[in-house]
Amino acid sequence: MTIGHNSKKPRAGGVAVDQLKSIIARVEKLTEEKESLAADIRDVFAEAKGGGWDVKAIRSIIKIRKQDASEREEQETVLETYMNALGMLPLFEEDDE
Amino acid sequence: MTIGHNSKKPRAGGVAVDQLKSIIARVEKLTEEKESLAADIRDVFAEAKGGGWDVKAIRSIIKIRKQDASEREEQETVLETYMNALGMLPLFEEDDE
Amino acid sequence: MTIGHNSKKPRAGGVAVDQLKSIIARVEKLTEEKESLAADIRDVFAEAKGGGWDVKAIRSIIKIRKQDASEREEQETVLETYMNALGMLPLFEEDDE
Amino acid sequence: MTIGHNSKKPRAGGVAVDQLKSIIARVEKLTEEKESLAADIRDVFAEAKGGGWDVKAIRSIIKIRKQDASEREEQETVLETYMNALGMLPLFEEDDE
Repeated sequence: MTIGHNSKKPRAGGVAVDQLKSIIARVEKLTEEKESLAADIRDVFAEAKGGGWDVKAIRSIIKIRKQDASEREEQETVLETYMNALGMLPLFEEDDE
Repeated sequence: MTIGHNSKKPRAGGVAVDQLKSIIARVEKLTEEKESLAADIRDVFAEAKGGGWDVKAIRSIIKIRKQDASEREEQETVLETYMNALGMLPLFEEDDE
Repeated sequence: MTIGHNSKKPRAGGVAVDQLKSIIARVEKLTEEKESLAADIRDVFAEAKGGGWDVKAIRSIIKIRKQDASEREEQETVLETYMNALGMLPLFEEDDE
Repeated sequence: MTIGHNSKKPRAGGVAVDQLKSIIARVEKLTEEKESLAADIRDVFAEAKGGGWDVKAIRSIIKIRKQDASEREEQETVLETYMNALGMLPLFEEDDE
């Protein structure tokens, strides 16, 4: 079994400690920044909720904006066809059937 | 765009309703059973906790039992080598320092 | 620190081995059954896909069926109001604008 | 049903469009930055793997470094007690049995 790395400066147990420390430090720093952004996102949603907005709907909109429009339209069409076939559609089209 | 299926008994909107209903019914039944088992598992852990057991340790044991023993041993060795290199090991080996 | 349990039949290290074994055995059995059901669900979806069905739409339908109808209708209304406000709505209502 | 918000500048459908747009824009910007950091983390691990490091062990170390040392030590002790009771321990203590 080979443990480790291809470094030229091996240390304790054949492990290049500096390289290992650098990897860990970088991952920890990036993770901290990532978690800070996650907290910021939660804050915006909390503020939105506090302002009376429907957070679930906002999440849906953000998801829709990420999708390709024509792809989404096709998905909606398939879903409506299936729902119609199952008699579930009055939900969406009460007026024009 | 083709919506649907290859069935010979098409219905509403070209959709074979019976086949669609069967798929949905089977998934819903299986999902219900799966959720019931998940609740059973939670119950066992709740009972274990109530009996004074450390649930986190029990989860670790179940995870370890699923792993291949030699694979796990190798993983532990690598982890200890890295931890030793980083000076983190007294955690495990209080006696021989 | 107290490790363990309140049992009257302590064994190795103060641990009631039989009780611990029973907990682990039950969780493992239930987990196995749960994973088997998860595999069955995947099989139904694979069969559906093989039959030409749109699996994503079927998942949406199952999700919708789990929701309360009036709650969902309200959610859809909010979403449409927001999308309309943002000028995103032609997606759904090309004809009647 | 009330849709929306408490703003004083209502627009389309009673929705304060600017406020809604601002919420969405901020969440999308933060999410983008968060995903960029997630990609950076993956890159560091890819680089580590390319350098011969055991990524699973590095993840374990980062997890351990986040835990409180005494808490972790206590967890390890409980786990070892349970494993010992179940006859699983030779894994860790080959020498002193």
